[in-house]
Parts: sequence; C-alpha cells; structure tokens
Amino acid sequence: MTSPVINLAQALIQKPSITPLDEGCQTLMAEHLTKIGFNIENLFFVDTQNMWARKGSQAPLFCFAGHTDVVPTGPQSEWKIPPFNGEIKDGFLHGRGAADMKGSLAAMVIATERFVTKHPNHKGSIAFLITSDEEGPFINGTTRVIDVLESRNEKMDMCLVGEPSSTTTLGDVVKNGRRGSLTGFLTIKGVQGHVAYPNLALNPIHLAAPIIEELTQTHWDSGNEFFPATSFQISNINGGTGAGNVIPGSVEIQFNFRFSTQVTMEILQQKVNDIILQHDVKYELNWIKNGLPFLTDSGPLVDATVKAIKKIQGLDTSLETSGGTSDGRFIAQTGAQVIELGPCNATIHKIDECVKTDDLEILTDIYEQILIETLT
Amino acid sequence: MTSPVINLAQALIQKPSITPLDEGCQTLMAEHLTKIGFNIENLFFVDTQNMWARKGSQAPLFCFAGHTDVVPTGPQSEWKIPPFNGEIKDGFLHGRGAADMKGSLAAMVIATERFVTKHPNHKGSIAFLITSDEEGPFINGTTRVIDVLESRNEKMDMCLVGEPSSTTTLGDVVKNGRRGSLTGFLTIKGVQGHVAYPNLALNPIHLAAPIIEELTQTHWDSGNEFFPATSFQISNINGGTGAGNVIPGSVEIQFNFRFSTQVTMEILQQKVNDIILQHDVKYELNWIKNGLPFLTDSGPLVDATVKAIKKIQGLDTSLETSGGTSDGRFIAQTGAQVIELGPCNATIHKIDECVKTDDLEILTDIYEQILIETLT
Repeated sequence: MTSPVINLAQALIQKPSITPLDEGCQTLMAEHLTKIGFNIENLFFVDTQNMWARKGSQAPLFCFAGHTDVVPTGPQSEWKIPPFNGEIKDGFLHGRGAADMKGSLAAMVIATERFVTKHPNHKGSIAFLITSDEEGPFINGTTRVIDVLESRNEKMDMCLVGEPSSTTTLGDVVKNGRRGSLTGFLTIKGVQGHVAYPNLALNPIHLAAPIIEELTQTHWDSGNEFFPATSFQISNINGGTGAGNVIPGSVEIQFNFRFSTQVTMEILQQKVNDIILQHDVKYELNWIKNGLPFLTDSGPLVDATVKAIKKIQGLDTSLETSGGTSDGRFIAQTGAQVIELGPCNATIHKIDECVKTDDLEILTDIYEQILIETLT
Repeated sequence: MTSPVINLAQALIQKPSITPLDEGCQTLMAEHLTKIGFNIENLFFVDTQNMWARKGSQAPLFCFAGHTDVVPTGPQSEWKIPPFNGEIKDGFLHGRGAADMKGSLAAMVIATERFVTKHPNHKGSIAFLITSDEEGPFINGTTRVIDVLESRNEKMDMCLVGEPSSTTTLGDVVKNGRRGSLTGFLTIKGVQGHVAYPNLALNPIHLAAPIIEELTQTHWDSGNEFFPATSFQISNINGGTGAGNVIPGSVEIQFNFRFSTQVTMEILQQKVNDIILQHDVKYELNWIKNGLPFLTDSGPLVDATVKAIKKIQGLDTSLETSGGTSDGRFIAQTGAQVIELGPCNATIHKIDECVKTDDLEILTDIYEQILIETLT
C-alpha cells in the first residue's frame, strides 16, 4: 500500500534539514512540480534556501507558503523512533517535521498534482513560496522572497500557509490572523552599594517592583471580534552581582506584548514609557518589533477553506487568531488574503513529533478542495 | 628612627596571609607575647590557624580579638606600592592588611608589652584571640576557639576587637555593637509556558512584583537609641530561560536584613512568611542566619575606651552600631562586653590600603590606656 503523500512526507523527513538547512527538500518538491508545469526559481540568501515555484501567469494568484527547515531534535536517544527515519508506527508517521511542516508540504504538492491533472484549464495561477529559515531568525527567507516579488510587481491574491493549525481534529482550527509581537528590553538603574549601607545606594530591584506591578495590571485593550485582548508578559528578569551583601547597580527586564489590531506598536511603546516615567527612575528601554498583527476576516480564501473543511471532514472549523507568530504576517503585509491550515500541533517542537497518516490523506483532500473552490 | 609598632606591623604585612592563610603571623606575635609571660595555644581547625594566648588566670579577663588573614589584593600591578612590601611613604604605611588589621595587631602587642612591663602587678588577665579566617567563611576561626573556651568554662569579661572602626580621625568612632544579619532565599513558583499562551502559564515574575513591593515598603521597626531601623535589601533576582518567548517556571530572589535589637530573627522570618502567604503563591523560602545583633551599651569597657580616647586623642568618640558584621558578634554571645576600635577604614579591602604611621603610634597609646583603665 503506497500513498503518494506519505511517500513524499517520508522522503522529506529523511532529509535532516535543521534550520536554516534545506538538505535537498526543495529540490525534491521541485521535481514533482516541474513535471506538472511549474517554473522554479531558487533564491539563496546568505544561509537560506528559498524556492518560488509558479504555474500560470493569470490572476488570481493562489500561493502555498511553507518551510522545509525544522527545529533541532533535542537528544536523539530520547526519541522512540529516530527523528530522521520517517517511520510509520500504529498509524502515525514519526519524525522531526512530520507535523511542522513536511506533512503539509507533501500534502500540498500531491493536492496540486491532482488538481492540475483534473482541472488543466483552471483559472488563475498557483505558486509555492518555500523557505528554509522559518524556524530561525526569519531574516533571509520569506521576507526576502517577498522583496523580489514586490520588485517585479508580482502580487499574491490568496496565500494558504501550511502551519499546523489543528488542535484535536484535523481542520478544527484555521488561523485567519495572528497577533502582533513586540519585545522590550528595560534596564532600571540604581546605585550599587553594600547592603549594610543602604542609604549610600539605590536598589534598582526595589525601584522595579512597582513598575512591574503596574505594567502587569495595565489593561491594554479588550481585543475585538477576532483578537483576544493584548497580553503583556515578562520573560526574563536579572539583577544582582551574585554576592549576598551587594545592592546591584541595575536590573534588566525583558518583556513581550502579543497585541491585537485595537492598538499599535507605537501606542504600546508610548504607554510603557509613560508608566515608567511616572515612577521617576533612571532607565533605558530598547525594542524589537517582531511583527504586526494581521487579519483575513472574510473573502474568497476564508470561504473556500471553511467550505472545503466542511465538505471533506464534515466539520465547522473555527477561525482563530491566537497562538504564536508565523511567516503569514509577512505575506499579509503585501495585501494578500492569508490563512493557515495544517495538521494537529500537539507534538510540534517536541520529542516524538508525529502526524496521523490518515490526517495527511485528509489534508491532501482538503487542500485540493480549496484549490477547486478558489480556482475553478 | 625605629618604632616597635611600625616594625612589627611591617613584618606582619610582609607575610602574604590571604585568607585563610596565616603565613607565620601568629608565630611572630607569639614570639613577642611569650617573652612577657603569655601562654600560647595554637588551635588549627581544617584550614584555619587560630591562637589563644593568655597571661594570668584571674578575673577579669581582658581579651584582644583580631585576625591575621587579609582579603585578596586584586591586580597587584594596580598598587602604587606592592601590597606585601610593607613600605612607608609620605607618612603612611602601605600594604594589604595595613588597616585591616595588622596595624591593630602590632599596636596591641606593643601596648601589652609596655603595660605589663610598667604594671607587673596589674589585676585580672590578658588574652589574645587571633584567627586566620575572619575574611573568609568564619567557620573554623573565632567560633571554634570560643567552643574550646566554653568547654573548659574559660570566660572573657571584656573583649576589644581591633577592627578599623575610625572614619576620619583615629578614635572618632567606636563600634559598641553591630546589627544582626539574616539572609533569605525566596523562590516564587509559577507555571512555565509560551508567552503567546499566557492563559496556560502562570508568570512567577508577575506574582513576585507585589510581594517585593510589600516587602520593601514594610516598616520592620524604628530602631532604638543604639541601632538604626532594621533594613531590608534585595541583593539578587533571577528569573527567565533567556528566551524571549518563554514564561519562566520560577523566579529566585535573595534578600538580606540588617536588623536591630528591637526585633528577632524569628519575628522577621514570620513577618516575611505572613506577607508572602497573603499573596497566595507557591513558594520556597530558606534562610541563612548570619549573625545576631549585639550591644555593649555601658560598663567598664565602654567607659575605659571613651576615657582612653579622650585622654590620648582629646576626642569625644562616637559609639555606633552601623556597618557590616565582625567576629565581635560571636564573642558577644558568650556574655562578654565587646567593643571594636581600630584605624581609619577608608582604604580597607581596596587597592593601595594604607594606614597613617602616626595613627599606629596613637592607637598603641590608646590600647595601653584602655588596659590601664580596666586592669589597674
């Protein structure tokens, strides 16, 4: 019993493409895609292998976006099945990337083969935007391919991202947006000294406590129909020389916002500064703007995805914007409709990552149905 | 121009007795003391050389307590004069230990020589309790010698500690007590998770902020006539995995109390626990009891010291309990009157430690006068 989607997924898993390596995954995909008329462009930037594969030149342009890189395995000895074997056991395909996202890559390649064979005269065009640095610093991947596309005015209309969006049943959740992410690095400055002489020092940890408390209790927004309320979380705090008798000179605090479309990065930055300023402390505050929020709340792509899941899985999918960031945020900036649909995400980034083989077959059917809904 | 006290101080500085080493300092002191009738006991524990030298068997027992070890030099190339040369320049004796406290050791040895020569029939007894780990972990030094003394019911009545208590003029400050020191190690426990899913995690840094704020704003006591108010200082705080997208599972906080005789360690521990308990968090709290406060507010030793400083220096000394801890705290536990008097402390533990040679001569006179006041 050979299945084209499982065979391809296995072959992809067997290439140990730990980020930012591609290890020939994109070549393997390209072999399939060239046979059905795709034009392949390999775009290598610094350390990242990217592929832009397109068939047809008409609008609308339907794009599948994904990545061939995977996160590291952790100790391979802890895996029940070696992470790059691609073995099937008890109905599950095992291996690093099985769910995130080599299964999706295989499903879309096979779905596209079937679709163009059955619908040779479909409207519009189909493309694949594949990178090998989605799990890394995302500097030389999707964003740089988009730069190339924008420079020649090549516009995606719809983009399906293969990220593992499902929770308990394949297709139960589709991401139709993502929150923005903003990281702050705050240093609160005091005056170092001996704990026995506190009047000669100024304890920055003591100064920080009420500021942290106010930041954590601030209501940033209430979210909206599509987004949960903006959340603020401190990820790291470090102050002290290690010695028990020294008041340190400063304390470092790193925090992160996941924010809705009800606020902007600028509003959040201003509010944080305002709060700290009220406390009359010396401080330094630097920012990393990880990504803006995006939302595809309606339109042909959302409709097609909802209908396809209903038709193939019999499920009313849930449109959600929760969770982490993905490359979808970069594509949404171009004006494209963007949704994310892929396998169940319970095992991603973990030891013994796996995906149900039946789910990959169903995912292939759903992807094919989405192509039918949007391009016929 | 040779001066006995300067000669001895130089010889002591020339022995590089970085804690817990003694390097023959105690032997050198013993050579002087045996000549004037002292009985010497060398008490070596683990890595620490201690000496108990006593002359006479009558009460009251007047003891001088001190240490031959010194703190490390830091980069020797930064010293204007090499730290173990014991050179005199511009009226200052330079070197590691000059002020803390080889100058005091030399002054008391010479003062005792003069005293017993002039007053062969003085009342009571004189002893030296000298250790080589006062600057280290103080485990195998003064406390263990005290254990030996207590086991044979040998009681000090008065103890003069040679710590550098003076600030701008020799004798301007005498320490007649020290605050207690209590260190706490607090771990506040949350639930680790991804910053994008704060509802699945519990941020221990957020939980800690209001606790820290309450601890820093708590009024522990108002001090009293002899002690400043108890102070609370956080010396170290650490939480976070280093990653910007992970809510850590716990945060570690180290703090220290310097406390007066108006509270006890038990009261402070109870209060801290009560405050944390009100915040309904999981936590762990461990303590190191560094030392109890002590106070010698009146009596023959204080009177003698005040009078001696007035007579030799023409100064009204100030009795204070501020600053760090010293071995005086261990001796005070035995019930002895304890005061600390030594050179100016501006250069101690620093590069280019030094002491005015004139001050060592004056200190010798003051020490001799204290013996006269207490034992004749």
